[in-house]
This record gives sequence, structure tokens and C-alpha cells, in this order.
Amino acid sequence: MKNRNTISFASDNSAPVCPELMEALARVNSGATFGYGNDDHTRQMEERFKDLFQCDLRAFPVATGTAANVLALSVLTPPYGSVYCHRQAHIEMDECGAPEFYTNGAKLVLLDGEDGKIAPTDLVAALSASGAGVVHHVQPAALSLTQVTECGTLYTPDEIASLTDIARSHGLSVHMDGARFANAAAAMGVSPADLTWRSGVDVLSFGATKNGAMAVEAVVFFNPEEQAARIKDFEFRRKRGAHLFSKMRYLSAQLDRHLEGDLWLRLAGNANAMAARLKDGLSSCPDVALLYPVEANILFARLPEATIDRLETEGFLFYVMGARQNGQVRLVTSWNTTADEVDAFLSIVRQTGA
Amino acid sequence: MKNRNTISFASDNSAPVCPELMEALARVNSGATFGYGNDDHTRQMEERFKDLFQCDLRAFPVATGTAANVLALSVLTPPYGSVYCHRQAHIEMDECGAPEFYTNGAKLVLLDGEDGKIAPTDLVAALSASGAGVVHHVQPAALSLTQVTECGTLYTPDEIASLTDIARSHGLSVHMDGARFANAAAAMGVSPADLTWRSGVDVLSFGATKNGAMAVEAVVFFNPEEQAARIKDFEFRRKRGAHLFSKMRYLSAQLDRHLEGDLWLRLAGNANAMAARLKDGLSSCPDVALLYPVEANILFARLPEATIDRLETEGFLFYVMGARQNGQVRLVTSWNTTADEVDAFLSIVRQTGA
Amino acid sequence: MKNRNTISFASDNSAPVCPELMEALARVNSGATFGYGNDDHTRQMEERFKDLFQCDLRAFPVATGTAANVLALSVLTPPYGSVYCHRQAHIEMDECGAPEFYTNGAKLVLLDGEDGKIAPTDLVAALSASGAGVVHHVQPAALSLTQVTECGTLYTPDEIASLTDIARSHGLSVHMDGARFANAAAAMGVSPADLTWRSGVDVLSFGATKNGAMAVEAVVFFNPEEQAARIKDFEFRRKRGAHLFSKMRYLSAQLDRHLEGDLWLRLAGNANAMAARLKDGLSSCPDVALLYPVEANILFARLPEATIDRLETEGFLFYVMGARQNGQVRLVTSWNTTADEVDAFLSIVRQTGA
Amino acid sequence: MKNRNTISFASDNSAPVCPELMEALARVNSGATFGYGNDDHTRQMEERFKDLFQCDLRAFPVATGTAANVLALSVLTPPYGSVYCHRQAHIEMDECGAPEFYTNGAKLVLLDGEDGKIAPTDLVAALSASGAGVVHHVQPAALSLTQVTECGTLYTPDEIASLTDIARSHGLSVHMDGARFANAAAAMGVSPADLTWRSGVDVLSFGATKNGAMAVEAVVFFNPEEQAARIKDFEFRRKRGAHLFSKMRYLSAQLDRHLEGDLWLRLAGNANAMAARLKDGLSSCPDVALLYPVEANILFARLPEATIDRLETEGFLFYVMGARQNGQVRLVTSWNTTADEVDAFLSIVRQTGA
Repeated sequence: MKNRNTISFASDNSAPVCPELMEALARVNSGATFGYGNDDHTRQMEERFKDLFQCDLRAFPVATGTAANVLALSVLTPPYGSVYCHRQAHIEMDECGAPEFYTNGAKLVLLDGEDGKIAPTDLVAALSASGAGVVHHVQPAALSLTQVTECGTLYTPDEIASLTDIARSHGLSVHMDGARFANAAAAMGVSPADLTWRSGVDVLSFGATKNGAMAVEAVVFFNPEEQAARIKDFEFRRKRGAHLFSKMRYLSAQLDRHLEGDLWLRLAGNANAMAARLKDGLSSCPDVALLYPVEANILFARLPEATIDRLETEGFLFYVMGARQNGQVRLVTSWNTTADEVDAFLSIVRQTGA
Repeated sequence: MKNRNTISFASDNSAPVCPELMEALARVNSGATFGYGNDDHTRQMEERFKDLFQCDLRAFPVATGTAANVLALSVLTPPYGSVYCHRQAHIEMDECGAPEFYTNGAKLVLLDGEDGKIAPTDLVAALSASGAGVVHHVQPAALSLTQVTECGTLYTPDEIASLTDIARSHGLSVHMDGARFANAAAAMGVSPADLTWRSGVDVLSFGATKNGAMAVEAVVFFNPEEQAARIKDFEFRRKRGAHLFSKMRYLSAQLDRHLEGDLWLRLAGNANAMAARLKDGLSSCPDVALLYPVEANILFARLPEATIDRLETEGFLFYVMGARQNGQVRLVTSWNTTADEVDAFLSIVRQTGA
Repeated sequence: MKNRNTISFASDNSAPVCPELMEALARVNSGATFGYGNDDHTRQMEERFKDLFQCDLRAFPVATGTAANVLALSVLTPPYGSVYCHRQAHIEMDECGAPEFYTNGAKLVLLDGEDGKIAPTDLVAALSASGAGVVHHVQPAALSLTQVTECGTLYTPDEIASLTDIARSHGLSVHMDGARFANAAAAMGVSPADLTWRSGVDVLSFGATKNGAMAVEAVVFFNPEEQAARIKDFEFRRKRGAHLFSKMRYLSAQLDRHLEGDLWLRLAGNANAMAARLKDGLSSCPDVALLYPVEANILFARLPEATIDRLETEGFLFYVMGARQNGQVRLVTSWNTTADEVDAFLSIVRQTGA
Repeated sequence: MKNRNTISFASDNSAPVCPELMEALARVNSGATFGYGNDDHTRQMEERFKDLFQCDLRAFPVATGTAANVLALSVLTPPYGSVYCHRQAHIEMDECGAPEFYTNGAKLVLLDGEDGKIAPTDLVAALSASGAGVVHHVQPAALSLTQVTECGTLYTPDEIASLTDIARSHGLSVHMDGARFANAAAAMGVSPADLTWRSGVDVLSFGATKNGAMAVEAVVFFNPEEQAARIKDFEFRRKRGAHLFSKMRYLSAQLDRHLEGDLWLRLAGNANAMAARLKDGLSSCPDVALLYPVEANILFARLPEATIDRLETEGFLFYVMGARQNGQVRLVTSWNTTADEVDAFLSIVRQTGA
């Protein structure tokens, strides 16, 4: 067990890099290569993505989740376009306006929906009122779904398809923010293809950083022939956004190893299992309430304020949402969270509870 | 000696990561930390920069040289401002308009000057014709110098000061693109302070990637109290540009180790020494011409076309500039270039020469 | 009475230019002047604004209401800032993302509130949740109020002050979209000073086009010494936005004449009176419902669908809002609307009603 | 003759509006119309342009020359594109970065060429060095020609065609900044069609403001079917740029009357004739040098400093270019310049000369 001071449920990005990826970095660390992705590691990584998604595609490494999201969106909307997303979406809440920067000022249209999931009826209503075709109004351009959602819930393939069908019928493209795509895939046991292009997703932000990598995500374009113009556009925008890495092999190697032998699913699976253990434990505490269904590796709970105080004193890291007296906390488990860590946390909760 | 196929003079970014930095990455790879730079490794790295530059400062890691440059420029100019730089500057030639993107459309004003160095008289002339204060014209906002220049030459502290004095007297701020700052410092034996803030530089892009790191540069602000508003601005723009890394410790650790025990100077020193060896060898070939003074780790030479063909056949990597029959090549040495590699290259040149 | 085909309640911008302003245009139409506002007409216009608002100020003519709004906002927020406005604000609904364009991607934060007026509690709640100071979130920068609101209602000076106090205490600047400021001033009988700077407004879009002008609005900065940096910024952004007119005298002359002898209040007063007449008439129709308080020159009403059909057949121009069967219409009266026109409209409504 | 104080050779935009256009404004000033260009005046104006250019086209009124130029460019280049223009082009020198703003940061590539005219060899050289297709470099997107050039010279149809052929063969679109297109057409006696689409121009900024209008230019798209996507894009960008006028009839009426009965050519013809008279007079003064061929309504001359002093004392308005002792002045004649005015100017020059 790690030092008590470093047990973190703050975020899956507070975890270190998993050993397999550190080894992969070491493995590519010899000899010279041309830069900027013109190397064999990058080509191999892309092939690995094709195998995983069982289709032709293009996969481009970038180093932050925000970069993946906003570069993807930047090729899906004109500056006078609009992107439909959930009110709590990361692109709206936590990216300091990066989507507006990269799209040169497109507008995010915020939708409601329980448990962080866009309700189809809300999407239909918003699109009906959008003023499509009228020069005074921004023009509907894209739908962005988050999987795992910001509330820790999941869209089923059917739910995705019902939203993308609506999008498609209004001429929108579809982006999926998959910062925790691995956790979704691991939790549902559904094929990556079913969760994306077979359900109508055009571009995926495939996250790895929160799942044991150092700093890498892939922007994946399905149907690359159809999207050829966008892909070309993307490559210039990635460079222009200063997100084209000279020593690309180190990004590609992380992604490549991640996919090899389903490591990505194994890592995410541990995070999910530890979240389930945490959920089970918290469910049995009478003074604790879970705020959303726990379906992947994020939990939102309401704890007594004294419990929060004690947990912090004991050195646990996690986020308190809003005013402290409301007692709402966010708990995120990681690829390296252990059962002992979960149990230590639960033990404190039980001790301080009513 | 490495595989002949991988002897590269293409760029210092085609080299791998030096072992000391790989070890540094491994060393920070345990336990949880808060993300986004709120960690001890990042704080320690900044202290290390203060020691190196013998002054108070702020140092922010980013992952690409373009990101360092354009984020720095973004806080030095309004959208209707102009940035004065050499006609061959990286920010003009090789960043796909990233400066225009990050500054929301500021203009680069291109200056001439021999050997890639801005001539003070040209800077004065350009500023005099700038229309400062007149609403029809973009407004002079910043000067950007490159050290080592794109031609492989160096500015002395006096040369820097003479340019920054002109800039200052016209109300401009000064940025230095130091993608190869280490090579300059190592070559001149001048203190980092003398090469920057003591010579009038406000913000430095301090490069590490081309000098043995995996992917990290620092944006260094001198006189942080005076520049407090800019620094605050910078922090939001870094996030908005999608360049704020969640697992920041891995960037900070590279910079920290780089500076520790003058590793950065040692690595750059090797690259410089190998360039000098290459220069000496080429100078003795009657049919080879060097195009600029060789002062750091970049050489531009004119070779017979047959020599170029043969070098490529032998598996050497390097760039041919413009039309092949002109015979102009760029050769860049790296932290890991060996004397054997240089000699192998020279041997081919001699064999194929007149 | 005008041709029946041209009785318009579609918008106050469907009306022609009032004769006094046409004369003013003719009056300045001789001799040469320097361009771009360096002329006596422009200087005189600005003096007239100072007299009207009983304070020092700067007033800049532009030609569209959107230009006035977005140029004003562009100097009140950084690109990573946010502008708080009502969900139905013109800047959100009807400017095709011009605020995002001119602010280089700032975000509009949408607030609720009855009758088109922002509720102070909603503003407080939104600001409390804004994440001010945290780099992941856009930063609260400005509040934008619309007077007359998009629902045709008015903010009293006290209501304005209560909102601007909240804004000020959170570090926000305050913009007022006064496309129909004249109608508000005329309706309330309150001094322009009380409606603006005395109630905490920093920058006003002062509309004239909808009130009998050809194409001119003024962007008015109060406390010009305090706002000196913004004003300078504004002048460059106006030019850069392509909104600096060479033959400025024709814009200035319209504004100057507008203010002379309170013409602006007289014109707006007629529009308001005709709206009141329309309201009175509609109120007496049992199958007609007014949707908001009628306080200036805009009415929203629910009419039987058959009535809408008949009105259109008779050649009346007006907007049907949303689905036709809902029967919601917007009616706007103008500086040149006559009692006969209102009565003709009402007569049809009465004939076709239940 | 006008008041001596108002004889202006400062710019053709210092002249007033010609009486025919004032009458046209009065003529459309009655009754209600729908706004934003959905009116008969606007439709009629567009038909008039089709007749003039003998082809199908779309013509959109805007109110400033800068707006015409930069909105046109904004649909011809992506943000990572480049626009090739002469070093002295108005879009580079006098628009405060508006092209960069409207294109979201595209780059202007500056070309040399005598007398303000781009030399075909320079264009070929620049395009060859552009790095087209390579992600590190901005991508060639458009060529922008100015007719009449900023030096007062003209491109013949053959000269235009030779440049547009080069552009076309490199995949560039072609824009013409015709702020003084009327002066070119009047001077050369060439059909508008030959000066534009028959010579390879895709989009024209057709100027009227400098030729007797109050504030209107047209952006003209030739081959509208081929350019359908751009035209749609243009309409949203015009609105988003705040350049869509609600009372559009007043802009359209100016353009319509301008073209009616060749008024535009008559007005420009007078300006040209007065420039020729000025040129003839100055040519006979031994201490006066003309700097460029005088082909339309702009002259650049070198005068003795004493002459400049005296002319200013006498109340003539004109621009001194650069340092006063160099004696370079720009003289622009207008639709209403009279022979008496020219002669009065020449008389002073002769009196004060050697």
C-alpha cells in the first residue's frame, strides 16, 4: 500500500504511469527517426487502432484531452456554427473556452438531461428552435457526447444511436469525448466499434492519459474517405495549434502499448472494479447518498461534513463540489487504485458516520 | 556506433531522449499528485530556473517549441499588434501560422539581416515606418529574436542589447525563441542571465526537446512582478490553448533534471563540438562551401549533387534545402552525435568529392 | 395613410428615415473634409452626447447595432472571459455569433429571468458558480443588459443599479445594449444619465437606426479617463472590424440631428404611444393574450390563427414566433406608425376574433 | 469654386456625395420594407450588376472598402492559408490587420513589383517556395490584386490574366480590390467583364464610396454556381462581422443609381481627367518629379518643401508621405474636382518653384 498521504480519489490523472507504458517508452528510445509522426511507431499505432475498431480509420496522437476534443471540434464546425452538448460537458465546463478558441468562436449550445446524459427530446427541441439556414443565427454543426459522462454514467449503443440519428437528420456531425472511453468499454463489455462508428460517431477523442498513460490521447476519424477533407484540415490545425510533436514516437508508443493485449481494458477494468467496491461500501452507510448511478470509475456522493474533514485530515485526496457544508464529493478511481485503499477510505467513512 | 540507417543530421529532434531524463521520468513515477502543475516537482523545477538565471522569475512547462513561442507572443501583443522578427524566423516559416492563431491575428513584420540575425538599422527603419499610434495600421508590440538563429549563428549579449534597446525605446516587449538556447549558452560560455534579462529579454522560450528531452520547453518570464498581468494572462491562455498538462510532473521532471548539474550544457556542448568537427572536415573539402558561420550545432553547406545522392544511399538523414541541384543541405548535430558518425559522413563526402 | 401593403409592425427597422435626418444628411453634403472622424461634424456630435448625458464621455459612431454591441464587448472581456446576459438577449440570439467573433471566442453565459429581465438572484448564483480565478474555467468579465429588453419590458434605474452592483462586486464591467434606448428613455421619463452611468453602466450601445436613422448607432464610453485604455483599444478594434467609416460626417450628422431638440425622444415617443394604443385595443379582444407587459414599442401577443392569416392577406407585415398554430406574434411600432395604421390592424383583429 | 479651405486632394473619400445619389436615397425613403436585403431595391441592384458584367453573379452591399476586402478574403482562405498581395496593398498597409481578423489569422505574403504591380516572376518564385502541402507551412490560398493600384497605376486585362493563370495553376482563388475599379474602367475603356471574370477574377470588391457614394461597396461573386458554398459562407460571415444592414435599401439604392446610365463611369472619368490635368501641369514644372505613371486619379509627386508649406498655408488638403523634407506627396482627384481647383493648385506650385 502506498503512503497514506498519497491515496487519491481526486482524479484518474493524479495516478502515475503504468509500468508497461514506461517500458514501452524505454523500448522506442534508441536511434534516430524523422520527426512529426513520420516514423514506424506511429504507423504501427494506427494499424493497431484499425484492428481494434475493425474498420479503416485515421488516428492522430495529441497530448491532452482538451487538445483532442477541441481539435476534433475545430474541423466539424464553421466559426458561425454551434456544437450541441450537455450542460455539464467538459468542453463547456473545464476547458477555459478552448472550444471557442479552436473553432474561432463557434457556440456551445447547452442541453439538459438526467445523470449527465443528453435527452433525445431536448436535442430535438433545441435543434427545432435553432434557426438553421437563417443568417442571424449560428448554424447547428455538431453534436458532442461524453462517454463516460461527467456524472460517471454511460450511454448504451442504442442511446448513442438514437442521439446520432437525430443529429444526422439535422445535418450535424458527431463527436465523442472519450477521455474515459476505456472505462466505458470495459464496463459495458461492448465492442469499441459498437460504441462509436456503428452507432453514428464520426470522430472520437480516445483517452489514455487518465488510464495510465503519461500524456497522450488519439483523435480517431472513422470513414476516412468520406472525411478526407476534414482530416487534411485537422492536420494543419493540429500543427497550427502547436500540438504536433517532433518526437512523436513517444506518444505513439504509449498508444500502441495501451492497445496491445487489451492492456487499456485491463487498466480501466481495475478502476471500474474499485469504483464498484467503493459504491458497495458507501451504499451501506446510512448517512451517505450516491448522487448518480455508478457505472464506471466516477462516484458522486453526499457525505457528512465531519466525514469530509476527517478524510482530508487522514490525507485522502478528492474534490469537494461547491459549498463544503453541502457535503458533495467526487471520487475517481484509477488503474492503480487498490482494494486496500478503497477499504481504508470506507473505514474512515464508517467511523465518522452516524 | 549506431545502425548506419539511423545516423541523422536531419534535426536534433530526431535524436532519442538522453538516459538521465529517462531516469528522471522513472523517478517521479510513483504515488499520486494533484494535477496541472500543483505538485512539488513543478515547484522544484521553477526554483532550479531561478538559480540558473540568478533572478526571480516564473517558468511554465509546455510540450512543444511552437507552443512556447506562440503562447509567449500571445501575451505580448494585442490582436492588432505586430511582432518584428527575422524573415527566416521559425515563427514565420515553420509554425503554420500558429503565432497568428494564438495572437488572434497579429502580424509578423519580417526583417532582413545577414546570417539570420536582425540588423539594428533594419529594425529602426521598420519601426520608423510603422505608423505607431495611427488607427489604420497594426501597432508595434514585440520583438522576437531567435538564439541560436535559424542559420546556426549567435547573437552576443551586446548584439541582443542593441536590439532590445531599440525595441524598448519604441515601446516593444522582447521575446527570445530559445529552442536551442542551450547550444548558444554552451557555445559562448556566457551566463544565461547575460543572454537574456540582463540584455533586455522579457520572455524566453527555453528549449529542451531538441537537447535530449522527450517533449518539454519552458516559457520563462523575467521580472515577474512587472509582468504580473501578463503571467496571469499566460496561465489562462495556456489552458485555453490545450497546453496545460494534467500529469505535469513528467514535464517538470525533465526540465528539473536537465538543469541539474549542468546536464543541459553538457548535452548541448556535445552537439556543438560535433558540429565543429563536421565544419572542420567540410572546410577542407574543395568542392564544399559553408553558407553561414558555424557557431553552434547547425551547418548549412553546398555539396555536389552526387555527394548528396551517395549520402542518402548510405542511409544518412538530413534535409536538402530547395532544388536538389543547388546542393544546399542543412546538417544538425545532437546531444548523442558521435565523432564516428561525423567521420563516417565526412568520409563519404571526401570519397564522392572532386 | 400609406399603402396598405406597407403597414409594417415587423420591426422598427422596416421604417424609412425620418425627414429631419434626411435634411441633416443634405446639410453636411458639401465641401471636403478629412475622413475617418477627423471632422467638425463628428466633434460636434460628441459634444452633443456630453450635454445629453451631463458628463464627460467618448462617443463613437458605427453603422449597425450588432457592431455597436460586439465592439463594446470586445474591449470588456479577454478571449477567455465570459459575458453574462439574458437567455433571450440579442447578442445571444440574433447576431450569428458576432460577440464570439469580436471577442476572439469569449463565452456568453445565459441567465433566466421573467419578462426578458435578468433576475439579480440568478446573476448572483451564476457568478458564485463561475470558478473565478481558476484556470480551467472562463473568467467572468462583463454583464450585458438590454434596454428596452427583447420582451419589450424596461429596467428601472433601481433595477439596473441592483444588477450592476452585483456585477461590480464580482469585478465585472457593464454594457448596455440600447438599440431601443430612446424608447426606454421616452417611456420612463428618466434622464439618460440615470439610466446609464449613474446606475453603473460603463459602455452604452446607443441606438438610432431603429428610431428613424438610416444606419447609425453610437458606442458611448462613460468615465473616459478611467476607461482610457479600453477606448484606445476600441479605436483599433473598430478599424480592424472594418467599421471605421471614411465619410464619417454622414454618420455623425445623423446622431447630431437626432439629439438636437430632443428629436430622438419625440420619435421614440410616437412609437411608444402607438404601442400603447395597440395594447389597449388588443386588451379588449377576448381571444387575444398579451405575453409580456407592454412598456415601450414592442408587443408579443397570442392571436387566433385565422386572425394571423387575415392580417397577412391584408398586407400587414409582422413576425410569427415559432409554430404558426401557437399564434404568437411580435408587433413593433415605429417613429412613423400612425393611429390609423394601428386602428386598421385592430379592426382586422376584431373582425376575425371570436 | 468651393471655399479655398476645402480644396482637397487628400483622398477621394474627402469629397461629398454626388447629387444623383442623394436623390436616389430620397427616392427610396418611403414606406416599409423587410430588412437585411429582403427588398426590391436590393434585388434590382443585383440585376443591374448582372447587366453590367454580362454574366450571372451575386452582389452583396457592404459599407466600407475594408469590409468588402476582408469579407471576400475570409471565404477564400482557411485560417492556415496565405494571401499573396503586393507589399503596398491596402489590405497589408491600411486595414489594421482586418484581413487577419476576418480570416482568423491567415497570413499575407508580400510581393514586390514596380509601380505597385505584382510581377509575375515574383509570384511564381513565391509560390514555388511556399511549401504547399507541408503541414509546417501556411498554405497558398488566394491572390489579391488591386485595381487601380496603390501607386495609381493600372493592370491591363492581359496583365491580370497572366497573374491569375499562375494563381490558378497553383490552386489559388483570385480577389480584386476594386476600391477604385471605376477609375480603372473609365481610364482604360475596357469592359468590366474583361477586367474581371474574363481575366480570371473570382471575387471583386467593387468600390463606390470613393467615387461619389456615401458609404457603400459591393462584393461581387462571379460564377455563382461554382462558388455556391463560398457565397453561403459569405452571407453568414457578413452578418457575423456586423456588416449586414437592417435598412439595406439605402445601400442598394446607392449602388443601383451608381450603375444607372453609367453614372459611375462619368464620375470616375472626371476624377481621371482632373488627375491628367494635374499631371500635365506638374510635368512642366522643372523642380517637380512624378514618382509613378499617372494612369487614373492618383498622383505621387516630389515637390520642394517650400511648395508644400505654401500649399498647406493656402488651405489645400493632401498627404505628405514619410519625412517632410523628402517632399513626397500623394494627390487624389475626385468626382467633383474642378479644373479651377487643379489650376489653383498648379498656380501655387509654379509660384513657389525654382
